Amino acid sequence: MNIKLTLSYDGTAYHGWQEQQNAVTVQGTLLAAIRNVMSDASSVQGVSRTDAGVHAILYTANFCTEKVIPIENITKALNSNLPLDIRVLNAEIVDDEFHAQFDCINKTYIYRISNSEIQCPFDKNYTWHFPYKLDFDKMQEAAKFIIGTKDFSAFCASGEEREDRVRTVNSLDISMSRHSELDSESQIAGQARNDIITIEINADGFLYNMVRIIVGTLIEVGNGRILVDEIQGIIEGKDRTKAGMTAPPHGLFLKEAFY
Amino acid sequence: MNIKLTLSYDGTAYHGWQEQQNAVTVQGTLLAAIRNVMSDASSVQGVSRTDAGVHAILYTANFCTEKVIPIENITKALNSNLPLDIRVLNAEIVDDEFHAQFDCINKTYIYRISNSEIQCPFDKNYTWHFPYKLDFDKMQEAAKFIIGTKDFSAFCASGEEREDRVRTVNSLDISMSRHSELDSESQIAGQARNDIITIEINADGFLYNMVRIIVGTLIEVGNGRILVDEIQGIIEGKDRTKAGMTAPPHGLFLKEAFY
Repeated sequence: MNIKLTLSYDGTAYHGWQEQQNAVTVQGTLLAAIRNVMSDASSVQGVSRTDAGVHAILYTANFCTEKVIPIENITKALNSNLPLDIRVLNAEIVDDEFHAQFDCINKTYIYRISNSEIQCPFDKNYTWHFPYKLDFDKMQEAAKFIIGTKDFSAFCASGEEREDRVRTVNSLDISMSRHSELDSESQIAGQARNDIITIEINADGFLYNMVRIIVGTLIEVGNGRILVDEIQGIIEGKDRTKAGMTAPPHGLFLKEAFY
Repeated sequence: MNIKLTLSYDGTAYHGWQEQQNAVTVQGTLLAAIRNVMSDASSVQGVSRTDAGVHAILYTANFCTEKVIPIENITKALNSNLPLDIRVLNAEIVDDEFHAQFDCINKTYIYRISNSEIQCPFDKNYTWHFPYKLDFDKMQEAAKFIIGTKDFSAFCASGEEREDRVRTVNSLDISMSRHSELDSESQIAGQARNDIITIEINADGFLYNMVRIIVGTLIEVGNGRILVDEIQGIIEGKDRTKAGMTAPPHGLFLKEAFY
């Protein structure tokens, strides 16, 4: 049986998704839980590697087992073998050919920025604190240049092994909300501005650090260090050093993978 | 000068507010930061002790110093000496007589419960996961009996040193929202129910563990183990063993103190 899992995880305590010898990872932790329940499972495939500190809201994984366990019991059994910062939301039987990584058509990431002078302590692991003034309209204008089918070499960290750097960015939306994590009606909103900028990007594939470099570039546009007019040239130049900084990992969430 | 601070903290990493010899506390951490900035400060007074794991959205503290520092610089100076899970939101000069604890007229706490089958991993430190069915209407009915000026001995943990157990609960509201911490529009809401129950209580004073025992009692009413009709008798009986369990600390937030 090929089992597809949907899970959600807080990446704060993990050295990313991919299993490593001497580090606690999401994949390693999940595989240990799967083996506790279904001892014949030898591996678990994830939709993508996420870096240390990166989170996932709806992450897709799959694994194979011949153990006969009612599918409705798998979610509960795995959760009772997992720490609270990794939760399996759903388990379903899929075709033997299903592969969480290769069958993914496109993925959506969100990146969260705390744009207030003081970062809410509850957002510490879930936003990039960027307290400087940002020109929201310019960021929106710059985002338009990034949408489409392009060679994204300029937004790709060294370490990317894939030669083909052409990807299709289907959408790139920037929104701002003024809220408290804990209670949108909370008085904290009145006393301490808590502006959260959310950048949501969907593409058919992502190069290494692509979202974080796009976010870093948009932030530098908002901050005036890169001009909107320069974006087209940065993309065409395919030179990583001309794009913006790499935004830190803890603001990044894999939101959903589509099949 | 007497300085009033408003701060927000994530209590996850702390052994509560009150300074202790061999444990990291919010008061101890804050006092060390204050002394780094204003070396003559000898103590900092908080509005109330919070237990290990309990959080604060708008906490009030005060301290005295003779150092002449522009008041508008104090917030920034303290924050640069504090870890990210404690943030000073505001500093202001107040009357020499102002005392964060004794001058407080009433306080509001909120308690957050994740009432979904699966707790969102991002809520792990900020909600009590209670996955069983709750009768919301009965909880609302029971709450009405708790409002008013009463002897709250039944809702007071052993260890409370104050003899006078009469307090006035001004309001006790229970609300339910179906949302994701990270994005109320997020698809997670569709895939995994994420019902958050928020219990908000304002009183002129709180006995030891009073909010957590009230919450535990309301949950047992919602779960059918305590009847609405029993609440009046539980209060009048002044017997802690007749009330409900003590809800765990990590769902509790001091929301605001009023002067």
